[in-house]
Amino acid sequence: MINVGIVGATGYAGEELIGILIRHPKVRITNLSAKIVKPRVFSEIFPKFKNTLDLVCAEPDIKKIISQCELVFLALPHTASMKIAPSLLNAGKKVIDLSADYRLKDVKTYEKFYKTKQKDRVYLKEAIYGLPELYREKIKKARLIANPGCYPTAAILALAPAIAFGLVDLSQIIIDAKSGVSGAGRKAAEELIFSEINEDFKAYKVNTHQHMPEINQELAKLANKLINVTFVPHLLPLNRGILETIYVKTQRHLPAGRQSRHKEARRQGLSSLYKKFYEKEPFVRIKDEGDFPTLKEVVGTNFCDIGIKDYGNIIIIIVAIDNLLKGAAGQAVQNMNIMYEFPEYSGLT
Amino acid sequence: MINVGIVGATGYAGEELIGILIRHPKVRITNLSAKIVKPRVFSEIFPKFKNTLDLVCAEPDIKKIISQCELVFLALPHTASMKIAPSLLNAGKKVIDLSADYRLKDVKTYEKFYKTKQKDRVYLKEAIYGLPELYREKIKKARLIANPGCYPTAAILALAPAIAFGLVDLSQIIIDAKSGVSGAGRKAAEELIFSEINEDFKAYKVNTHQHMPEINQELAKLANKLINVTFVPHLLPLNRGILETIYVKTQRHLPAGRQSRHKEARRQGLSSLYKKFYEKEPFVRIKDEGDFPTLKEVVGTNFCDIGIKDYGNIIIIIVAIDNLLKGAAGQAVQNMNIMYEFPEYSGLT
Amino acid sequence: MINVGIVGATGYAGEELIGILIRHPKVRITNLSAKIVKPRVFSEIFPKFKNTLDLVCAEPDIKKIISQCELVFLALPHTASMKIAPSLLNAGKKVIDLSADYRLKDVKTYEKFYKTKQKDRVYLKEAIYGLPELYREKIKKARLIANPGCYPTAAILALAPAIAFGLVDLSQIIIDAKSGVSGAGRKAAEELIFSEINEDFKAYKVNTHQHMPEINQELAKLANKLINVTFVPHLLPLNRGILETIYVKTQRHLPAGRQSRHKEARRQGLSSLYKKFYEKEPFVRIKDEGDFPTLKEVVGTNFCDIGIKDYGNIIIIIVAIDNLLKGAAGQAVQNMNIMYEFPEYSGLT
Amino acid sequence: MINVGIVGATGYAGEELIGILIRHPKVRITNLSAKIVKPRVFSEIFPKFKNTLDLVCAEPDIKKIISQCELVFLALPHTASMKIAPSLLNAGKKVIDLSADYRLKDVKTYEKFYKTKQKDRVYLKEAIYGLPELYREKIKKARLIANPGCYPTAAILALAPAIAFGLVDLSQIIIDAKSGVSGAGRKAAEELIFSEINEDFKAYKVNTHQHMPEINQELAKLANKLINVTFVPHLLPLNRGILETIYVKTQRHLPAGRQSRHKEARRQGLSSLYKKFYEKEPFVRIKDEGDFPTLKEVVGTNFCDIGIKDYGNIIIIIVAIDNLLKGAAGQAVQNMNIMYEFPEYSGLT
Repeated sequence: MINVGIVGATGYAGEELIGILIRHPKVRITNLSAKIVKPRVFSEIFPKFKNTLDLVCAEPDIKKIISQCELVFLALPHTASMKIAPSLLNAGKKVIDLSADYRLKDVKTYEKFYKTKQKDRVYLKEAIYGLPELYREKIKKARLIANPGCYPTAAILALAPAIAFGLVDLSQIIIDAKSGVSGAGRKAAEELIFSEINEDFKAYKVNTHQHMPEINQELAKLANKLINVTFVPHLLPLNRGILETIYVKTQRHLPAGRQSRHKEARRQGLSSLYKKFYEKEPFVRIKDEGDFPTLKEVVGTNFCDIGIKDYGNIIIIIVAIDNLLKGAAGQAVQNMNIMYEFPEYSGLT
Repeated sequence: MINVGIVGATGYAGEELIGILIRHPKVRITNLSAKIVKPRVFSEIFPKFKNTLDLVCAEPDIKKIISQCELVFLALPHTASMKIAPSLLNAGKKVIDLSADYRLKDVKTYEKFYKTKQKDRVYLKEAIYGLPELYREKIKKARLIANPGCYPTAAILALAPAIAFGLVDLSQIIIDAKSGVSGAGRKAAEELIFSEINEDFKAYKVNTHQHMPEINQELAKLANKLINVTFVPHLLPLNRGILETIYVKTQRHLPAGRQSRHKEARRQGLSSLYKKFYEKEPFVRIKDEGDFPTLKEVVGTNFCDIGIKDYGNIIIIIVAIDNLLKGAAGQAVQNMNIMYEFPEYSGLT
Repeated sequence: MINVGIVGATGYAGEELIGILIRHPKVRITNLSAKIVKPRVFSEIFPKFKNTLDLVCAEPDIKKIISQCELVFLALPHTASMKIAPSLLNAGKKVIDLSADYRLKDVKTYEKFYKTKQKDRVYLKEAIYGLPELYREKIKKARLIANPGCYPTAAILALAPAIAFGLVDLSQIIIDAKSGVSGAGRKAAEELIFSEINEDFKAYKVNTHQHMPEINQELAKLANKLINVTFVPHLLPLNRGILETIYVKTQRHLPAGRQSRHKEARRQGLSSLYKKFYEKEPFVRIKDEGDFPTLKEVVGTNFCDIGIKDYGNIIIIIVAIDNLLKGAAGQAVQNMNIMYEFPEYSGLT
Repeated sequence: MINVGIVGATGYAGEELIGILIRHPKVRITNLSAKIVKPRVFSEIFPKFKNTLDLVCAEPDIKKIISQCELVFLALPHTASMKIAPSLLNAGKKVIDLSADYRLKDVKTYEKFYKTKQKDRVYLKEAIYGLPELYREKIKKARLIANPGCYPTAAILALAPAIAFGLVDLSQIIIDAKSGVSGAGRKAAEELIFSEINEDFKAYKVNTHQHMPEINQELAKLANKLINVTFVPHLLPLNRGILETIYVKTQRHLPAGRQSRHKEARRQGLSSLYKKFYEKEPFVRIKDEGDFPTLKEVVGTNFCDIGIKDYGNIIIIIVAIDNLLKGAAGQAVQNMNIMYEFPEYSGLT
């Protein structure tokens, strides 16, 4: 049984995290905090938690958090996390940060895309990118987890096997991404009000979104080569879920050593290849050849579902996750489960 | 051909009004203004108007409006209208005000429900409540129209015939109202963002909504008696439309003079009675006995559709309008058409 | 650990039931059946269950069900249940029927509202109406549960205390009900397709809905008097949830014995009264005076939330449930928990 | 003034067509027909047309249509049109067919993708593909118009200038298309019911959709070369509108004669190029460099809005139309206006 705190409890990811942790058999929530005018019983803010969680939620009090918790989730906007995380880590606490502050190892890239200074280069070096399917062993020993972004989680899981097997022309990876509105966070903004978004659909931040360098960073590590994906996010008029349709070209000119492996891969079928790659993963499901996932199948779950098919020289990969679960709070709990050697699916079924 | 101005062009009602006036054969839009940081071509703010309206929209400049327009629509939040209307009226202009500022004849009631001072008692006296079905003759000669609220338009049209015929127990009128989100206006507010409203439904301002005294005022005039309706508005997760389900008790104890008329009314059927009452109205449609309107049938039109049926001692009336048309901009144009003796449906079909 | 079967596994209630039972610590699902062309692995029909439930779903085979299960849930359309239940009961199995077949004790009323013969009068007599808040003791010993309808669950729980305390004029109870679309079941019908319902809102079966006699039957038992509610259901453009706004008149002329109790009740406030009435109930939550529930607070939970306030001679009660949980599958599991003396909230948190 | 008939009046495209034609100053609707059990007044089926259209709608009676109309719109499913069109054309009538029956010049391709025989090869040869921006002169003299599909209208208009200017690597054109649900037609089908589609998003007919060969056919004519686009349509949970995000590679190896033209094009900027290409078109609007269209800007209009930007070696084009207007009924009326030399925007503003 561990004592955990959540900073940023009133955002969508924080609310979701609390919903999971309440049901988690090994966790006791001991501190809730958020940007809030005055302290309030949490179930007064979110009446759905009445009779299940009656803690008070107040402005974060670092000393109190340190004395009450051994693990702290930061469900904050970027820039806010790097102000709080160092004190917690210095006091020997573990931190899972859901913001972008510790995700990008290259400080210049962070500063360009987030338009703010990276202020904690010490812990930035130590932070582990919390994608269990790629970094499980490092997560086990980590003190600070940079929980991946929602779009990158889907994109990286969808592309990792194809890149690992050298199937893909790395010069041209096109990611057409669509996200539900909760991805924009709970904030008053005219462009987010219901009548603006309902019955509308649009692209935004075309090829300039701040999740693009995160995808590039991780794919580059897999490919051992610089990567520049083309990335166009769109806003869906629905609450939750991300679906990405990814178009890659098959690799034509292979180094001699890879040709046979590549041929073999395509002979088996890409679905089989993906199934093997992820066979031990509790939260990745690969569709049979020709089948593709829908949002509905993953919303409310921590699963990442992937369909892949080869159409001559183009491979189409479709991937779906719940942006608040596998794309945020669910993955954060999965990381906690790994760090504390709890069953990886605890609280997530 | 008349020159008109719209103050408050960027709100939902203003935008709708402009869409109608562009198509109106007798109207030239000569001035657009709104609360806006710096002047912008209107079709840059609303790209859908590109190639159809290319006026600049700026902060309201009263002198310019006076020199360019003979009729001005005020599509403003309450309190803003009564600051602007007097100057326009003093300069000999006609004004159709879509806010609540000139609707309530009783100043105390206005101040109680709108929590602000009524500052223009002079023109308040003169203002005509712009519900054409009840006040067409007065509208013809009016200089200042108080365009009715959306909920009251539906409620009053639904109840007027039943009250006029003395069919209703006036001590108990229950209005269960449901409105689309555009009724709340275009404003940044956390409770209006998509993820809060989508897949939710709730009552708000239960029996305390500011449209309640407006309904009471108008029904009282019809009944020649104080009226206190029970009024519960709800928020529907859709863009536009109001549907109200109204429950009244049939009047039992009638004054001798009214009994035969009342009996006759119920013998004919309430639908027939309503059809007769509204037979010359271009924008009220009465359903056959047992049929009730749906939102879809009226959204995008200026119609008010009404179904009514007698269930023993309870009469159920269901009424539907488009809140932005018959409930705001459409009715404003209908009023303009009457004031200028244009065909009443001009621009509205 | 008990073995259960679900007949009608592919409808909305069946699907929901399975989602709950998978997580239930005391239940093993041993048989799934439905109207289905040929047997299929359930997770092929509903890919979201992949890796969590891999049973085959086939046409119901009564012998197999009897040999594999001790409790059977019937999540079937009405008329289908009463064809299957008797064989199961004769074989000593327990049955929780989610259809309407065993709810109405008066056969004529059933036949009038459901337009079909009631064919099993023997077990009809024995069936217990499965509303735990009113009939927990009987449910404990029941073999056959008639699981309540969704609208009646909300209406009865909202009205029971007020009627029990004699606060209500029984001659006039008005229920304005609004339901999400899943209440209509999973069936191909032109009026249910997305483009017909999205952005629309309407009343249907005005004062003729088949759930009306069910509400009347149960309220009459509480009041010891015939009851005829006025009941207007409406269709909301959202997936799940029921919200009912109920208008009752306060009882004026009380028998001498009841006057003081009544006064006392109103002095304390209706919310306090309701809180006391339901204080031991795990799934009923009463709002503080002046607060009313929203759909969002109950969707995804088995809670029934109630707000109540006295407005002079009218009392307004607003009640919200998830129609697939407390209004169907959740309540069915709650009944099972009571029958088997499992903790009442098992599987439901 | 011309007399027109609509066959298939009760589908979404037919309903939309009627809404436009009612307002058209040069058109009288003289015959309405559809697959229908018994003749009904049209405004009884669609109450929103009450008081504006009171014709009877019956099964199509070819003789009557011939005697009452000079132009007939066929708003039918494919295969139904080619059974009716020949009799009308033989009788000297003009026909605008909204189905796919006369769109694909290659019979084998039609039969492969529509899985049915092409039965009218005579008129197939004569049919003009009704995309005014490309074929206006031919439309003027046409007797039979094959009105384009919704996805192809958007895709072809978005790609035509880039292909005409030789900017594009023709071996790789990726169209990621998203459509509202009305595109699927008004038909009872379990996968189209509200609760299935609401809050879901998915790809369907991945790279196998029947609109793909239509796009290929038209782009090939422009390019003078075989084209095979990659085409993935997705279903949006909203009523109307199509948005396509198109990814093309810039052409590298140009024939000598084209190089300077190509350079010049890229120097000017692609938006300017597109603006020039479409400068006389009343219904195509090009965004400024870096701006992209949203559904909301075109829904309810006949406009096709296009944004285009060059990102190194990838060009991204985003195009939006209302699938029922520019993608069906609006374009059909635009074609009629051209055929009869009415102002091209008549009825469409």
